[in-house]
Amino acid sequence: MKLAELYRHVKPEAAKLEKEIEAAITSDHDVLEQTSAHILQAGGKRIRPVFVLLSAKCSSYEFDEIKKVAVPLELIHMASLVHDDVIDDADTRRGRETIKSRWDNRTAMYTGDFLFAKAIQKAAESKFLDVHPILSRAMREMCIGEIEQLQDQYHADQSLKDYLRRIRRKTALLISVSCELGAVVSGADDDLRRALKWYGYYAGMAFQVTDDILDFTGSEKELGKPAGSDLIQGNITIPALYAMEEDAELNRMIRDYTNDPERVHLPMDDVIRRLRQTNAIFKSRQLADAYVNKAVMMLKPFASADTDSLIRIAHFIGGRRF
Amino acid sequence: MKLAELYRHVKPEAAKLEKEIEAAITSDHDVLEQTSAHILQAGGKRIRPVFVLLSAKCSSYEFDEIKKVAVPLELIHMASLVHDDVIDDADTRRGRETIKSRWDNRTAMYTGDFLFAKAIQKAAESKFLDVHPILSRAMREMCIGEIEQLQDQYHADQSLKDYLRRIRRKTALLISVSCELGAVVSGADDDLRRALKWYGYYAGMAFQVTDDILDFTGSEKELGKPAGSDLIQGNITIPALYAMEEDAELNRMIRDYTNDPERVHLPMDDVIRRLRQTNAIFKSRQLADAYVNKAVMMLKPFASADTDSLIRIAHFIGGRRF
Repeated sequence: MKLAELYRHVKPEAAKLEKEIEAAITSDHDVLEQTSAHILQAGGKRIRPVFVLLSAKCSSYEFDEIKKVAVPLELIHMASLVHDDVIDDADTRRGRETIKSRWDNRTAMYTGDFLFAKAIQKAAESKFLDVHPILSRAMREMCIGEIEQLQDQYHADQSLKDYLRRIRRKTALLISVSCELGAVVSGADDDLRRALKWYGYYAGMAFQVTDDILDFTGSEKELGKPAGSDLIQGNITIPALYAMEEDAELNRMIRDYTNDPERVHLPMDDVIRRLRQTNAIFKSRQLADAYVNKAVMMLKPFASADTDSLIRIAHFIGGRRF
Repeated sequence: MKLAELYRHVKPEAAKLEKEIEAAITSDHDVLEQTSAHILQAGGKRIRPVFVLLSAKCSSYEFDEIKKVAVPLELIHMASLVHDDVIDDADTRRGRETIKSRWDNRTAMYTGDFLFAKAIQKAAESKFLDVHPILSRAMREMCIGEIEQLQDQYHADQSLKDYLRRIRRKTALLISVSCELGAVVSGADDDLRRALKWYGYYAGMAFQVTDDILDFTGSEKELGKPAGSDLIQGNITIPALYAMEEDAELNRMIRDYTNDPERVHLPMDDVIRRLRQTNAIFKSRQLADAYVNKAVMMLKPFASADTDSLIRIAHFIGGRRF
């Protein structure tokens, strides 16, 4: 089962949104067009536009208004990805040795800025006044999330709460906003709007927890990067936090590494073998499932064929194995 | 004569705007608040808010609407300054050895993103629908300008036209937008709005040309950095372009340096002495004066005490000696 099959009924609209995203980044400036196209072609699931589309479908449906929020949301996501690629000199000595970008730091940064500006420009076409405050608040929160991630990086002394706070801002917020804006531009009433907003939030949390599980359980081929990459880059995610609680030796290994990542080697095969012997993956999956259930619960009072596809997507992203 | 004296009559409002800018960056997140405050306290002339204020004063005057555009404009300017501080590893080998920022690249980048988001969030409070398209277009153009500057850096083969294109996007556009938005939020009619927009554009061009002259004529004490810093950083400005036309030896020196900035030393005292023996400064001042005159001409049909202060400010910034 593929994600795309779950939204087959809106595939023509999803394809049209893809064209709109392509159109939004073209013909402004040669370098920016190339760098933006590079990010765009790198793919991605485009889940944010799909969430907008499916959320809007729960009410009355007007494609022209949907694209004015779906395109900005994907552009903001792309901007955050390209800014994520900007590195410090120091980072290169901390395991983060490959820059995905073929360009330099400054070009990557200005590409991100350009995508942000394009997003706002596109959103300005919307006739719904709630769009800008919602989008700009999300952008602000995402920046705070990025700073929190920098602060927590290579800190082994952190709690589950720290982790949840980070992924809330890093992932859940923009998915929540995608669903909320789908509701806004389709004229949903307040109850449905609130339900979709919280559905998106919980689905987003489930999505990120699952992503963080896959980073340890996926193969290099499935992930497109070596397993355990998050940990090597100093991002301590939920499976690692759970495993550190159970396995004192693993706890020590991770602490040694994060205390001095430039000198200490972290034997990832050994780390993953030990992690799998704990209940970390099981407990992480339980957490993802809990979020999926919360997401599903939000939509219960609005049962229809349209909310049904959102419910199936929540189950899918919470349960996906790659 | 100081700039502040020219807008003494709006000083209470200017002071209130300063408080609003301070308030806009506070209490979101400790690191972001510190980095933002650092940029804010570094000072600056706050000319963008002043241009908003004075342009709005030409029509009916409502402070609450002014602050919703003046604060975002200064935040966008601050964001572009902090992003300007983000450097590539390569840059550090090209004379740009000091990072003004006390933080790392990524923190500086996210501080800029945060200020952009805050700007949009503040602007979203405005009831004037033209604000967002104008602001986001300006942000997009500024990104293109930054990329152009990267592309032109260390390229001695460039024309006056390349230079003008760069400073148009780098400086003139945001000042133009400041004046235009002052007109928009004070309900100016189309003619006055257009006049203020073009006044701002020409005043902005004059401002940047003058800045680029000062980089060669100012003392280190006046500038806060060594004279000729632009050239050392590979930014070839109008005085250098004019001087290279007249002095073949100077032309050769600059070419040798820009071809291999990591190895070739550029003797700045000698460069400045040679540049001063050409007509470069005189011709650059003529260009600044021409822009000042164009700015002034735009406001001629609307002569009043309020346009008069804008005219005096144009003369001031075009003729300032430090």
